[in-house]
Amino acid sequence: MKPVAEIFSQGEEVISGQIVDHNAAWLSEQLTELGFAVKRHTAVGDHLDDLVALIKEIAVRADCCICTGGLGPTTDDLTAEAVSIASGFPLRLDESALQQIRQFFAWRNRSMPEANCKQAMLPEKAIRIDNAYGTAPGFALKIRRCWFVFLPGVPFEMKAMFTALVVQPLRDRFSLSPDCLITLRSIGIGESAIQQCLEDLVLPSSVQLGFRAVPDEVLTKLLFPAGFDEQEKRVCVQRAAELIGDYVFAIDGLDGTQGDLIEVISRLMRDKRHTLAVLETASQGLLAAKCLGRDWLRAAEISLDTADLDINQHDLANAARVLARQLRTRRQTNLALVQLYAGDQSDYGDKDRAIVLYNALATPKGVVSSRHHAFGAIKYKQNQAASLALDLLRRYLQDKCL
Amino acid sequence: MKPVAEIFSQGEEVISGQIVDHNAAWLSEQLTELGFAVKRHTAVGDHLDDLVALIKEIAVRADCCICTGGLGPTTDDLTAEAVSIASGFPLRLDESALQQIRQFFAWRNRSMPEANCKQAMLPEKAIRIDNAYGTAPGFALKIRRCWFVFLPGVPFEMKAMFTALVVQPLRDRFSLSPDCLITLRSIGIGESAIQQCLEDLVLPSSVQLGFRAVPDEVLTKLLFPAGFDEQEKRVCVQRAAELIGDYVFAIDGLDGTQGDLIEVISRLMRDKRHTLAVLETASQGLLAAKCLGRDWLRAAEISLDTADLDINQHDLANAARVLARQLRTRRQTNLALVQLYAGDQSDYGDKDRAIVLYNALATPKGVVSSRHHAFGAIKYKQNQAASLALDLLRRYLQDKCL
Repeated sequence: MKPVAEIFSQGEEVISGQIVDHNAAWLSEQLTELGFAVKRHTAVGDHLDDLVALIKEIAVRADCCICTGGLGPTTDDLTAEAVSIASGFPLRLDESALQQIRQFFAWRNRSMPEANCKQAMLPEKAIRIDNAYGTAPGFALKIRRCWFVFLPGVPFEMKAMFTALVVQPLRDRFSLSPDCLITLRSIGIGESAIQQCLEDLVLPSSVQLGFRAVPDEVLTKLLFPAGFDEQEKRVCVQRAAELIGDYVFAIDGLDGTQGDLIEVISRLMRDKRHTLAVLETASQGLLAAKCLGRDWLRAAEISLDTADLDINQHDLANAARVLARQLRTRRQTNLALVQLYAGDQSDYGDKDRAIVLYNALATPKGVVSSRHHAFGAIKYKQNQAASLALDLLRRYLQDKCL
Repeated sequence: MKPVAEIFSQGEEVISGQIVDHNAAWLSEQLTELGFAVKRHTAVGDHLDDLVALIKEIAVRADCCICTGGLGPTTDDLTAEAVSIASGFPLRLDESALQQIRQFFAWRNRSMPEANCKQAMLPEKAIRIDNAYGTAPGFALKIRRCWFVFLPGVPFEMKAMFTALVVQPLRDRFSLSPDCLITLRSIGIGESAIQQCLEDLVLPSSVQLGFRAVPDEVLTKLLFPAGFDEQEKRVCVQRAAELIGDYVFAIDGLDGTQGDLIEVISRLMRDKRHTLAVLETASQGLLAAKCLGRDWLRAAEISLDTADLDINQHDLANAARVLARQLRTRRQTNLALVQLYAGDQSDYGDKDRAIVLYNALATPKGVVSSRHHAFGAIKYKQNQAASLALDLLRRYLQDKCL
């Protein structure tokens, strides 16, 4: 059984929504990779009673808890006091901590404000965690079942302290054996359709299957327990990838990280020394914008209205192919991608109406093309238009075009 | 006393740190503005026991709880089941919900996968909350002390449903006397510079001042308690806006919502019947992409390399002005916006090096221009380039150009 971990964030600015709690996500990822089972995140404001209650709850529920925030010098920083009440250990002045805080100010040629003394008051029995970047030292101690680690809420201080001074002691204190997460990344297919594809997939009961839709792609996740047979793992992943089919553009976690769609494309474009020109309509600049910083993109054109183009408006599939060939010649690139759409502006703006996307890619060996429907809010359609055009390029580069 | 609210997020991807919980921050802000005292955020993974335990805890601790996630069609979506166990209300098929889910697929010319049936199973006594954007309906019900609202985890579905279908029922159900939040929205100036501008601002002690940086803008927030004198409030806001200066493009909460930069611009463009052509370099399509669905944008061009343009490379400020005049003539619009940058590709890609942005706007009365430095990661620079070019247009439209 994995040790159970929790994350606890303190701060009025978190609880009122003034800041987004990135610390919790970062710490979760670290703890999960180390081999903890992270069970809960909790955030509370700067109220002593709420803090004491929460620490007492966690003390009997978890094996380890990382807490951020509330270590500052001001009156609303109450963590040490709350820990003292919840644990029964009185606060004591830590002389080394005070020394370090004084030094922090001395280096900056300032005298230490009286308020900062408070930061050197730590609960008896706590182990101090030095802060090389700010005035607030962290500390760790056991309360009932749970090993608590308290760190400042400033992200870069917290991360530096966790990495340098917390990770190794956690490894020493707990018996950890991390799982292996494999992620199949796909585009152009929905979450429930993937689930249908995988209906016949038989996995060992110890393997967890999960899904997640993010704006550009759907992730299928296979979580293998520590020590799972390497060969059998590869067979499971291979089988899942085959069942989902060509929608899968990358597999992360098996042999490193392959990255998102644009990274996968970029690696192949560079390897094959291809150059690209694009002409986009529905995506209105977003296709070019997604290729930012990629030197294989040589030219980008936007047409705001398909009606302005000198093409047969009644056969956009063919028109896209003709335009792609022309663009390739005109821009002297070896690939040219054209993205057209059918439907008027009002269809595009109406979340309940679809537009039809026509993509064509001119290559040295001829033209390949794709057709899709895009639905939903206008920005969602725009993103679909850009991503599905890029996906045609990805399929060509991976030799997966029909 | 304000009613106590909590936020509860479900999902393995939150608890494992794969995604950052932006939903919790957004909902907190909404609830705080409505007049709730938000006390806790909690996130748990997709485990039935954990979900049931948490719902039972919150049911006796809070007056209202907004929960997101776990309403999808897959086997790891367990919210409805957990609610049923925690509340004792059995799950029943909601015929209207099933109808809507079927229709969602029918509109898209696809047949409904069997798995989606599950999304129409709601706890008895729950009030359904329709989802116009996806397949997962939400629902609300009272368990012991607490009014629970369950919404999907997909941010745009969650936000649309909360705004359209949850806010008014919450106002009806609870006796809320909200504080009044005024937000000054600014662009082109940092958070600490704004703080310096406001050093001499004297506010009554009951008024809270806060700041938040979001990707495109910095928000300065003034929170006035319920019943604060209207005239005095206007004086405070006016004084703050004057101290920050022309960087302020909108003030939300005083006389309704003025919206983001593109909305402010769009309203003025339509009122004045202007048309626009753009030529962009550093933003590489993002400037045009941000104008999606705005019919005053008539033409958009991208130049991937400033060196390709037939201009004096040693005087980009002037070159931008010349190109803007040419673009206005060539595209026959009454405004034309050109966005150039100095610095090579390696400067652009290096987060520790700056690029210089030159914007010029040709108008019927002549050309106005601006110059900025952009710093940070490549995508951040790209966004700055697009936003600061649009801000020149905003300043012209608001008669704030020098």
